[in-house]
Amino acid sequence: MQPLSVALGDRSYPIHIGAGLLDHAQMYAQYVASRSVAVVTNKVVAPLYLERVQHALEHAGARVVPVLIEDGEQAKAWATLDHVVDALLAARCGRDSVIVALGGGVVGDLAGFAAAVYQRGIGFIQIPTTLLAQVDSSVGGKTAINHARGKNMVGAFHQPLAVIADVATLNTLPDRELRAGIAEVIKHGLILDLEFLEWLEKQMEKLLARDPVALAHAVRRSCELKAQVVADDERETGLRAILNFGHTFGHAIEAGMGYGEWLHGEAVAAGMVMAAELSARAGTLRREDAARVKALIGRAGLPIRGPDLAIDKYLELMQVDKKAVGGKVRFILLDGLGRATLRGDLDAHLVRESIAAVAQ
Amino acid sequence: MQPLSVALGDRSYPIHIGAGLLDHAQMYAQYVASRSVAVVTNKVVAPLYLERVQHALEHAGARVVPVLIEDGEQAKAWATLDHVVDALLAARCGRDSVIVALGGGVVGDLAGFAAAVYQRGIGFIQIPTTLLAQVDSSVGGKTAINHARGKNMVGAFHQPLAVIADVATLNTLPDRELRAGIAEVIKHGLILDLEFLEWLEKQMEKLLARDPVALAHAVRRSCELKAQVVADDERETGLRAILNFGHTFGHAIEAGMGYGEWLHGEAVAAGMVMAAELSARAGTLRREDAARVKALIGRAGLPIRGPDLAIDKYLELMQVDKKAVGGKVRFILLDGLGRATLRGDLDAHLVRESIAAVAQ
Repeated sequence: MQPLSVALGDRSYPIHIGAGLLDHAQMYAQYVASRSVAVVTNKVVAPLYLERVQHALEHAGARVVPVLIEDGEQAKAWATLDHVVDALLAARCGRDSVIVALGGGVVGDLAGFAAAVYQRGIGFIQIPTTLLAQVDSSVGGKTAINHARGKNMVGAFHQPLAVIADVATLNTLPDRELRAGIAEVIKHGLILDLEFLEWLEKQMEKLLARDPVALAHAVRRSCELKAQVVADDERETGLRAILNFGHTFGHAIEAGMGYGEWLHGEAVAAGMVMAAELSARAGTLRREDAARVKALIGRAGLPIRGPDLAIDKYLELMQVDKKAVGGKVRFILLDGLGRATLRGDLDAHLVRESIAAVAQ
Repeated sequence: MQPLSVALGDRSYPIHIGAGLLDHAQMYAQYVASRSVAVVTNKVVAPLYLERVQHALEHAGARVVPVLIEDGEQAKAWATLDHVVDALLAARCGRDSVIVALGGGVVGDLAGFAAAVYQRGIGFIQIPTTLLAQVDSSVGGKTAINHARGKNMVGAFHQPLAVIADVATLNTLPDRELRAGIAEVIKHGLILDLEFLEWLEKQMEKLLARDPVALAHAVRRSCELKAQVVADDERETGLRAILNFGHTFGHAIEAGMGYGEWLHGEAVAAGMVMAAELSARAGTLRREDAARVKALIGRAGLPIRGPDLAIDKYLELMQVDKKAVGGKVRFILLDGLGRATLRGDLDAHLVRESIAAVAQ
């Protein structure tokens, strides 16, 4: 099948989607032939796919340097970045080297950032192996590590040379992670494409059963939708912000529960229910459509209630100043199903009420 | 005086050069009004200029957050970068904040890299206070930190919003650092501008005596010459490499002696004598012109001999593979005075003989 393209001028790149792509040496060749290629992956993914990817890269003419990092969000840290840089320098990788990020969102964010700063920037290829990474984090060039004071506080916009989404890798994904990825798929339908949303309502059971045709379509349509937004606003100066639908609430849930307790997609799921509730209260979404959002998220096996944190705690974590209660705040709302809008004039008490309705 | 411009499309920026510019609030206003501005500086520069810069920035409408780092090359490290990021987050600096780099090359490289990665990139302003930084490192957008395995191995191309070179700050510069800066000024004449080189031969005593008119001209012409090269090749895929004239030898000297033992400019000075010697041996520079190079560098009070390291040690540090002896290597040579050329076909034994002639 033809790859999608993310249209970013001289930084445009293809997204290849299909089953079994990992092994297609000729797909890598144009990027890696006679170069050093550092494959950054973690200790969970390596036993599953490293050997196959290494074999394909070598077949394409690359010298492969595997670099293993820890699994989990805590790997997005200075120490891991230094470890990757050290491994590349030790292997005498020069400015024409390429980094391959083989794994989920953490590997992609960390390895992509390493590529952004190694010798002031080298090329990288995303091989996302989780649904979340395939439909979201691998597309758009956002890379980052975390800081003690906040997630993704240090990073770069660094577009990959290519994204290779092998949907067959989703067969090894734990159920919980599959569902967490579906949260972002649903998000793309909610904010951008009513038709896709209706398809999801029809095909949810097939997706959960990992039907390969359904999965490939969900990944492809999600990437298409995200690629359009990214092409219009690479550095998030405007439109791209709508991709954060549900995320302001979601980040508060992740931070409030301690990172890793709720998966990102789970927190976003409950966050989207809150954001839909807020949309209904603000008058931009019909009540029955807010109920449809909640029902679909529930059918995906995702949380439709937020954790029972104090509302002031939510607001603090969302960095909605308590003084703003009575004042105005900015949120991304649904403007009907399939369309999002950024509203800067919301009464803060609506936010408070929406959290209360969903979290308690 | 009209600022120079570095022509890089939508990343173009002005270089303001003059005495007393530090205090000109209206020059900062367009970049900093109603923003948070983190002034990154070190413990040597802060007592001299921080209060004045802070006052001018506040007058221009900024909220100023001073961030102090250690003096010296060892500050170009992960730990310092984390310290800067932490200070900005603690002060709740958002994505519209600006970093001001107030100091020499170390401050500029570190603070510029912090700006490149803080929340995926914010704006920064260079206020170089050493001659080396004013004529070289503040122009061109190269930012970096060091790694145990090599200098500037982690960094980004991140162009500043503006460069403000206040030549009056050179009055507080130690003599040795002034001379180290003159090495890069001489380099610009050697590789790009015979007329400027002849001006330097006439005006060297005035420069060493810190004549303000002579200093301003040396800074201005150096910046003009470098800006042209950077505009033609922002990411050093070709032409920009000529700015590294003398630097391959120089880096070997810095690394071989231990960083900080020789100043960068001193190592480059001896490195340029070696590169001129190599040019003469390769037949691209007349013997008497190589002697002129050496004489001018000597008159600037800079080293005209390299340290007495083993030649194999030089080659190792220059990453010229010993197996290449008898083979071919790439070097930047002078193609007559005022012109440089990249030669990929040099006999490695010429490199060996040139080092021997200058170092021992």
